[in-house]
Amino acid sequence: MIITMKKTAPKAEIDAVMGRLAAKGLQIHSSIGENYNVFGLVGDTSIIDPKQIEANPYVESVVRVGAPYKKANRLFHPEDTIVEVDGIKIGGKENIVVIGGPCSVEGEASICQIAQAVKESGGCMLRGGAYKPRTSPYAFQGLGKKGILALKKAKAQTGLPIVTELMSADKLDEFVENVDIIQIGARNMQNFDLLKAVGKTTKPVLLKRGLANTIEEWIMAAEYIMSEGNDQVIFCERGIRTFEPYTRNTLDLSVIPIIKEKTHLPIIIDPSHATGDWKLVESMSLAAIAAGADGLIIEVHENPQCAWSDGAQSLKPHKFTELIQKGRTIAQVIGRDIA
Amino acid sequence: MIITMKKTAPKAEIDAVMGRLAAKGLQIHSSIGENYNVFGLVGDTSIIDPKQIEANPYVESVVRVGAPYKKANRLFHPEDTIVEVDGIKIGGKENIVVIGGPCSVEGEASICQIAQAVKESGGCMLRGGAYKPRTSPYAFQGLGKKGILALKKAKAQTGLPIVTELMSADKLDEFVENVDIIQIGARNMQNFDLLKAVGKTTKPVLLKRGLANTIEEWIMAAEYIMSEGNDQVIFCERGIRTFEPYTRNTLDLSVIPIIKEKTHLPIIIDPSHATGDWKLVESMSLAAIAAGADGLIIEVHENPQCAWSDGAQSLKPHKFTELIQKGRTIAQVIGRDIA
Amino acid sequence: MIITMKKTAPKAEIDAVMGRLAAKGLQIHSSIGENYNVFGLVGDTSIIDPKQIEANPYVESVVRVGAPYKKANRLFHPEDTIVEVDGIKIGGKENIVVIGGPCSVEGEASICQIAQAVKESGGCMLRGGAYKPRTSPYAFQGLGKKGILALKKAKAQTGLPIVTELMSADKLDEFVENVDIIQIGARNMQNFDLLKAVGKTTKPVLLKRGLANTIEEWIMAAEYIMSEGNDQVIFCERGIRTFEPYTRNTLDLSVIPIIKEKTHLPIIIDPSHATGDWKLVESMSLAAIAAGADGLIIEVHENPQCAWSDGAQSLKPHKFTELIQKGRTIAQVIGRDIA
Amino acid sequence: MIITMKKTAPKAEIDAVMGRLAAKGLQIHSSIGENYNVFGLVGDTSIIDPKQIEANPYVESVVRVGAPYKKANRLFHPEDTIVEVDGIKIGGKENIVVIGGPCSVEGEASICQIAQAVKESGGCMLRGGAYKPRTSPYAFQGLGKKGILALKKAKAQTGLPIVTELMSADKLDEFVENVDIIQIGARNMQNFDLLKAVGKTTKPVLLKRGLANTIEEWIMAAEYIMSEGNDQVIFCERGIRTFEPYTRNTLDLSVIPIIKEKTHLPIIIDPSHATGDWKLVESMSLAAIAAGADGLIIEVHENPQCAWSDGAQSLKPHKFTELIQKGRTIAQVIGRDIA
Repeated sequence: MIITMKKTAPKAEIDAVMGRLAAKGLQIHSSIGENYNVFGLVGDTSIIDPKQIEANPYVESVVRVGAPYKKANRLFHPEDTIVEVDGIKIGGKENIVVIGGPCSVEGEASICQIAQAVKESGGCMLRGGAYKPRTSPYAFQGLGKKGILALKKAKAQTGLPIVTELMSADKLDEFVENVDIIQIGARNMQNFDLLKAVGKTTKPVLLKRGLANTIEEWIMAAEYIMSEGNDQVIFCERGIRTFEPYTRNTLDLSVIPIIKEKTHLPIIIDPSHATGDWKLVESMSLAAIAAGADGLIIEVHENPQCAWSDGAQSLKPHKFTELIQKGRTIAQVIGRDIA
Repeated sequence: MIITMKKTAPKAEIDAVMGRLAAKGLQIHSSIGENYNVFGLVGDTSIIDPKQIEANPYVESVVRVGAPYKKANRLFHPEDTIVEVDGIKIGGKENIVVIGGPCSVEGEASICQIAQAVKESGGCMLRGGAYKPRTSPYAFQGLGKKGILALKKAKAQTGLPIVTELMSADKLDEFVENVDIIQIGARNMQNFDLLKAVGKTTKPVLLKRGLANTIEEWIMAAEYIMSEGNDQVIFCERGIRTFEPYTRNTLDLSVIPIIKEKTHLPIIIDPSHATGDWKLVESMSLAAIAAGADGLIIEVHENPQCAWSDGAQSLKPHKFTELIQKGRTIAQVIGRDIA
Repeated sequence: MIITMKKTAPKAEIDAVMGRLAAKGLQIHSSIGENYNVFGLVGDTSIIDPKQIEANPYVESVVRVGAPYKKANRLFHPEDTIVEVDGIKIGGKENIVVIGGPCSVEGEASICQIAQAVKESGGCMLRGGAYKPRTSPYAFQGLGKKGILALKKAKAQTGLPIVTELMSADKLDEFVENVDIIQIGARNMQNFDLLKAVGKTTKPVLLKRGLANTIEEWIMAAEYIMSEGNDQVIFCERGIRTFEPYTRNTLDLSVIPIIKEKTHLPIIIDPSHATGDWKLVESMSLAAIAAGADGLIIEVHENPQCAWSDGAQSLKPHKFTELIQKGRTIAQVIGRDIA
Repeated sequence: MIITMKKTAPKAEIDAVMGRLAAKGLQIHSSIGENYNVFGLVGDTSIIDPKQIEANPYVESVVRVGAPYKKANRLFHPEDTIVEVDGIKIGGKENIVVIGGPCSVEGEASICQIAQAVKESGGCMLRGGAYKPRTSPYAFQGLGKKGILALKKAKAQTGLPIVTELMSADKLDEFVENVDIIQIGARNMQNFDLLKAVGKTTKPVLLKRGLANTIEEWIMAAEYIMSEGNDQVIFCERGIRTFEPYTRNTLDLSVIPIIKEKTHLPIIIDPSHATGDWKLVESMSLAAIAAGADGLIIEVHENPQCAWSDGAQSLKPHKFTELIQKGRTIAQVIGRDIA
């Protein structure tokens, strides 16, 4: 950590600041510049809150060197973490997983039918929302427990493991019992109580990036889960909010190599929510595979125009089949395959 | 609601779409253009999900006319809502409330001392976090219940009502019993389960704007609270996330007249979190008053350099006193005063 | 175009607004709603300025249906435009062009050496800045005319056509004489006088997307060039500005299918400026090819650490060779090749 | 400047990097940390390009301490710069200037009439575009030279100095001869050739902030003008581009205290372009005055509905009069007045 202090800082003030830091076991190296005095802190600076030091009016800036995360940090854990779900492996050099399904579970019959279609298309897991975060309180809020049980039925029929979103810690037991991967949605990425709660389980967690969260904040959200003991975290990029109105969000594929450099965890891409437009889903899926993603999560619906939510971004099963076929050819030329 | 369909749409397709809408009780007016066919829907379109209609490949766009919120909408509730807390009135033409206090409650003695200072400076309510949303799991997470009780002690000594943040619905009873205004933080603005939970109480709710949420999404979050029966909602702008690195966030003061035009609810400004820099707090506070804000919520700390969180944005009590004095002169020239 | 007026609008006011529009040859269809009156305009609305209509206090909103661009619009020009430069074809189903070279031209010997390396790696055009837009007036501003002549020498030796940036219309003759593709940089995307100037030539124009410009504004910038008579426009995405500090910009690959749907013009990707980090260039290049890009423009330097500008994002020639080899395998599975 | 290198960096590599820096006259202080080696550079680091150092694969990060601007920097020029135009002083503790006028000059008679109204309302300068940057090539592009002469006529009748936008250096002589303040528009903020051109004159320059430019980039644009010899630069905030669709841009008033801390130059606010909505202009103007702005530039039109551009954000003269009256009361309580 580098602290820059103004030249007007009295010696007593500098000594007080540095004394407090030295008392925390840090070594201090000082550089006296023409316009500023600069101090380098050596040791475990993750215990220091930069904001507290910046409160000093003589401090010009505080810059952290190195990352504030530990358990997710590849520096301290060089091997890839492989998350395993019912024998399907996610991450590292493993094959690419393709998760398909509707935005919302709409009933037992329909989810079983879509699950079958997902399986036939070549998908290896089933997605579907039972508890739905909706901007409007007047919009369909999901089938709740009934939706979870419908997903379970679909799994019984097809064998596809289930990914679905948890919105509140009071439903955690229901999810631990019935679900294979617990999704934390973009709007709850910094719902820290919820992160801690899933961190106390051993279930794999699909952690979506917040609408406007930096990569570092996203990794820190994973760190919340991991610091409670659960290291089965899968990152999921689903687009960030920008000024561009044409797409629902702006898909940031550069996070794929970045997450793989900074952390040892898998990352998958959600092109459906990122673009909000089914016509863009195939090209963004192929791009994600080419960029090294460990998986895709894609909305699939038998009849998108009648979907209860997000129909505009859902693929029909035959389009999903085509996408997987094309994706496989790209996966193969980069030395992987579709799981 | 206006639906634009491509000229390539077959008549049967158009009829099917319009038939489904007519069946929901809407009247439809059509305009046949050179490149597109345009349909205007008349009636209660808040029951329609535009995304569902956009799923139709022949639909070019769906545009909502008018707002998707009802209870917060000034169109249906022209009079200002005045929120009352221990006799202090917030909103409408009432005097401007100034809420002061530390980012985090650090102990009973310190919060009582700051509360006294806030009161002497002219503040009328006390803020302070007991449950703290922190980016890092390794940062101080707040004193929890002990912090809530310390705030209550400070209230007993000074009479200042308490505003503090609720992060999880399982603490709701504790808040209803001890707290005067329940704050929903920026990171939980779309934690819909939490919104519904506070909506079932009768406590006033301070609803912070999310880091990257639009004004419409913010009003819809208020609508979640109101649709459960609680109409005591106060909006709080705390800056939005932009590309600018100099300030912590970008304070958007234009929301003051917009919220007052679109809704009947009060709005207050948090210049401390918005800027992240105590040197900017006074000027942004005066600007907020001049723009018509109903209140300010400001971080105050006896010794910002030793604050357990966010010291860089905290004012010392004598600066807070000056701010209130200057604010009063501006409030008076626009026909209000500081409460 | 759809105009929504408030119910409080007096009939005389409505008649005045609609009368002005009818006088411009537009047909008007009206829908009388419960809360608003809605008017649909049919005809050539590209002559109408929505802002002018919104000036009326009784107007709630004005929404354009369909796009404001004509010459770039695929609706009116369904076939792909293929831009041809010295026999190399860009766009449509043609092979993917890879343009390589340094950020800045640093001298005749070095640019000739890099050009040779680019050619040996499999690149088919040479990039290099002679006039450089730099944030600081104290940074290297480019070799100017000397740089242009050095590029020309490199072309003479290798046969690679030259792409370089024009910053000011007073250098246009120099560019028309010596350069093969004129680049308009991100910072000048809305320098409308410069757009008009290049629009009067017959040279192909590489039009970079502005730092924070929407897709529609970008297409409108192409429309400026095309409306002067030059339809040889190639779009170039180079990342947009977002809140994320890790990358220099956020690369928006979704523009590839969008530009191809909305316009008939080619689009290439600049992963070097988008990410600002050579370690991310290969994966983003492969992703761009998979998503359907017509080309790549990549910074290549023999010795990035000694580059006079932007070394951090430059590839060494052997990395560039690898990138092209991998890119070719992906191009082939989607039915194209590297030119 | 602080350079952080990885622990894997070989000693020879470190020595090479530091040798190059020492050769430029910089002193180097090193701190050997557990995970990184940190080097502090002391001396004139404005000659160093951080991107060049970051090109080294062993370099983790390069952080500049202190600002890259010199002539605009308050550190080296503590007294306020006061820009004087026809006896009107802008900046420091001088009275607040209010500039009014239409978006576009529409003819001699109308601009003279508006100028008269601006003067009667209490405005002290006249704005009006003769050369207009428009998103669409099909929109009105301004009256050009005829517009400049019409402004001059309006000045002759009212005595109000003229502010108008220069879009291209080839019109510079026309502006130097006829105009009092040359405006550089948001879209040209980084048109560096244009900045250099106005920097060679002695005319005051109104430098608008780019749509998505940081404060530092904005000051660097001023530095371009100043480094050519012209220090009569006035900053003008006109809103930045964010995700919020309700306002045209997001007005960032925090720049007022920041520009005043970092530089010695005046800053004025344009609430008309920032909000795009005349209903928001008054409150944002009062806020700007309260926050310490040195002036306002506001769109005024006799008949906004018939304005040739941007009518939606124009005030009628009687509203402009009211705004100035209210603004004066706020200016007075903060110890200034309206000029």
